[in-house]
Amino acid sequence: MSEARVVRYIEANQKRFLGELVGWLKIPSISGLPKHRSDVLRAGDHVSRMLGGLGFKTKLLTSKGHPSVYAERIEDPKLPILLIYGHMDVQPVDPLTQWKHPPFDPWLEDGRLYGRGTADDKGQVMIHIKACEALIKMTGGLPLNVKFIIEGEEEVGSPNFEAIVKENRDRLTSTFTVISDTSMVGKGLPTVAYATRGLVYFEVSAEGPKTDLHSGSFGGAVVNPLLALAKVLSGMVDERGRVAIPGFYSGVAALTAKEKRWFSMVKSLGGEIEQVAGVPALGGEKGLGLVERVWARPTFEVHGLSGGFQGPGSKTIIPQNAMAKVSMRLVPGQDPARVAKMFTDHVRRSAPKGVRVSVQEIPGGGPAFIEDVEQPAFRCAGEALKAAFGVEPVFARCGGSIFAPEIFKRYYPKTPVVLMGFGLPGENAHAPNEWLDLDNFQKGIITCADYYGRLA
Amino acid sequence: MSEARVVRYIEANQKRFLGELVGWLKIPSISGLPKHRSDVLRAGDHVSRMLGGLGFKTKLLTSKGHPSVYAERIEDPKLPILLIYGHMDVQPVDPLTQWKHPPFDPWLEDGRLYGRGTADDKGQVMIHIKACEALIKMTGGLPLNVKFIIEGEEEVGSPNFEAIVKENRDRLTSTFTVISDTSMVGKGLPTVAYATRGLVYFEVSAEGPKTDLHSGSFGGAVVNPLLALAKVLSGMVDERGRVAIPGFYSGVAALTAKEKRWFSMVKSLGGEIEQVAGVPALGGEKGLGLVERVWARPTFEVHGLSGGFQGPGSKTIIPQNAMAKVSMRLVPGQDPARVAKMFTDHVRRSAPKGVRVSVQEIPGGGPAFIEDVEQPAFRCAGEALKAAFGVEPVFARCGGSIFAPEIFKRYYPKTPVVLMGFGLPGENAHAPNEWLDLDNFQKGIITCADYYGRLA
Repeated sequence: MSEARVVRYIEANQKRFLGELVGWLKIPSISGLPKHRSDVLRAGDHVSRMLGGLGFKTKLLTSKGHPSVYAERIEDPKLPILLIYGHMDVQPVDPLTQWKHPPFDPWLEDGRLYGRGTADDKGQVMIHIKACEALIKMTGGLPLNVKFIIEGEEEVGSPNFEAIVKENRDRLTSTFTVISDTSMVGKGLPTVAYATRGLVYFEVSAEGPKTDLHSGSFGGAVVNPLLALAKVLSGMVDERGRVAIPGFYSGVAALTAKEKRWFSMVKSLGGEIEQVAGVPALGGEKGLGLVERVWARPTFEVHGLSGGFQGPGSKTIIPQNAMAKVSMRLVPGQDPARVAKMFTDHVRRSAPKGVRVSVQEIPGGGPAFIEDVEQPAFRCAGEALKAAFGVEPVFARCGGSIFAPEIFKRYYPKTPVVLMGFGLPGENAHAPNEWLDLDNFQKGIITCADYYGRLA
Repeated sequence: MSEARVVRYIEANQKRFLGELVGWLKIPSISGLPKHRSDVLRAGDHVSRMLGGLGFKTKLLTSKGHPSVYAERIEDPKLPILLIYGHMDVQPVDPLTQWKHPPFDPWLEDGRLYGRGTADDKGQVMIHIKACEALIKMTGGLPLNVKFIIEGEEEVGSPNFEAIVKENRDRLTSTFTVISDTSMVGKGLPTVAYATRGLVYFEVSAEGPKTDLHSGSFGGAVVNPLLALAKVLSGMVDERGRVAIPGFYSGVAALTAKEKRWFSMVKSLGGEIEQVAGVPALGGEKGLGLVERVWARPTFEVHGLSGGFQGPGSKTIIPQNAMAKVSMRLVPGQDPARVAKMFTDHVRRSAPKGVRVSVQEIPGGGPAFIEDVEQPAFRCAGEALKAAFGVEPVFARCGGSIFAPEIFKRYYPKTPVVLMGFGLPGENAHAPNEWLDLDNFQKGIITCADYYGRLA
């Protein structure tokens, strides 16, 4: 447990901490929209100044895209080094009309701070900054050397982050790495994650006739590109909810006995998902538990589909073409390049002869990540979470894809990467009215201050 | 064969006939767009004056929607009556950018008159008007009593035409009915059609989660509405290209021996369709000939589909919902209401539990039409076409749907309805750069003048 004066400092300064977070949240650092390029830089400058004020030496690490902010505070070269990863860029805000208040004008409501970037990820980066501040103010320094790397392109798939790591290999070296960009499995259920799913993303199109054709004069003779694309896509998943691409599951490992036990203890996830989704029934692979399906199994999804006549009323055409956006989430053991090839081959094989199909991979994907939890870094994380939240933490995988952990593992294979997130299900991370639980914000800071000491 | 002086008159006045047709074509009488409502009325006024100038008594037959124009010239109450049906409304013109010249500013090119409504259907109505003019000018009158009924809502599925027929039942009584709103099977291949396909049209939607969801956090737990809709639609057609709705083919009669012989003589249709469509291979029901597939078999088509993220780049969502526009072409023996119920049931049955599907029928459909060709009206049509074109005519069915013939058959079961069209494949009837073959325009007038005499 953190020293009592550190905890008191964190509790006493909560309001100021939130005020400082709001100042950062007001900068609309949307990395995916070119017109917000300078806002990402402003958000970087803002966090540099905050860390500089705590005695960190800061440096902007540039790339072909948005830069990352680096900061370090070396207490004693003989102490271990903790690298803290987070990101300062945020998702776009459309549909704007669904926000209760402007997304970059954060507001407090029902024990939550609302606004774009509250949970994903400025609020979680702030948890670490304030943990450092509390330790420095109350104990005169940090218990170990701390480095921050705050990315500016996480929300667009980290296309240049590997180049930044490569170029700053020595600078980013650490004994431990911690990332706070994930969620707890439920309110009051502190969570340590040790795996994320990977991703490959494609645009698939089916080209039919030279022009839209009259479905009366041509129906029965000309293959309908929309129906052809529907057949191709629906052939990607079988009746048991499994991806039907031959070879897709090769390399996918079953859960370990320990994982089966951990997952079976996560009772809340189904209810959380049902409540957020509001669907009449859940789906996915038959015969597997919900937790395993979302955390540890690969999936196939259609994100968008369009073609032909979409206006009001009727128009009787065989459309010229059809287009779909699809992706597969990957798990450890699956190679994205190999899956991309299997998928492309399967599309070609399953398309009828009367249409020309094309498959284009959209950059921004990457492999899954998994970490061995039998390491002191995980034990310390679990102990710090238990001390702050008062319950045993959950060991979890993460259904989403964060590419930084896997990049870190490739460049620093011996450094453990711990995912210790303080978001919650339903936080609307990529949707309108994103929020961060205020209790998690405070307990997160207490947890982190404690964690640093345990690692030292 | 028409009298020589009638033929000479038609040939000598060709240029003037085209000029008068162009005057009518310049009126943008698009029935589907509310802002063109007055243009449909102007087109009706225009054709009324043309027929009035030939001694026809005219009358506007009003309805809840656009009116029809009625005209009659009673030569002698003891003579038989020919009812000529056509329509004065046209299709919308989008995409406007694909037109070589403005759609309502017709132009001549390569032996064709281009412009919206040239083939469908003002040009074909004009063929009959000019046949009447030639007979009246050269012989002093018509060989039988002639009535015109020129509809203003054919392009929106004739929603009020039955009401007009019902209300004017006596007025529209005839001995024979002829409709020129179809195509010949190829250039130089005069065609008499005796059947059209019916139509039922639906909007199908699949509603999933309350909001777009993150496919990482929810993928594997929540059913994807786009994938669900793709499954539902692709399950509508089996691997042999047959509609897979249970009971769908019940009542569908096989071709008669005569039809088999007629259809086998139509060699050109496949080539015409391939050329217009420009597809790598044709499709449709396996084991059946192309002509039968397009003319005499029911089909299932997807006209439009949309859902989720359709912009550039990638977005990893499970979309909230998905929507499709679909229809089925029907053949004689299929009841639209019964098919609509079978379809709706099949959608409900085949949708996964995790989505809410809804099916909404879009008005404007109707049953198929078929006529007994063993009647003098058909023999006379064949003889007139042979005389004008110099080759044996083809007896054909029509893949498209025109609802007037089936309405006429219900109200006047003893009056034969002959479909004698002068369009051609590839005429872009509902697409940019619609055209009418000039040779067919002239030979059409000669045919019709001859046909009236043979019926008398």
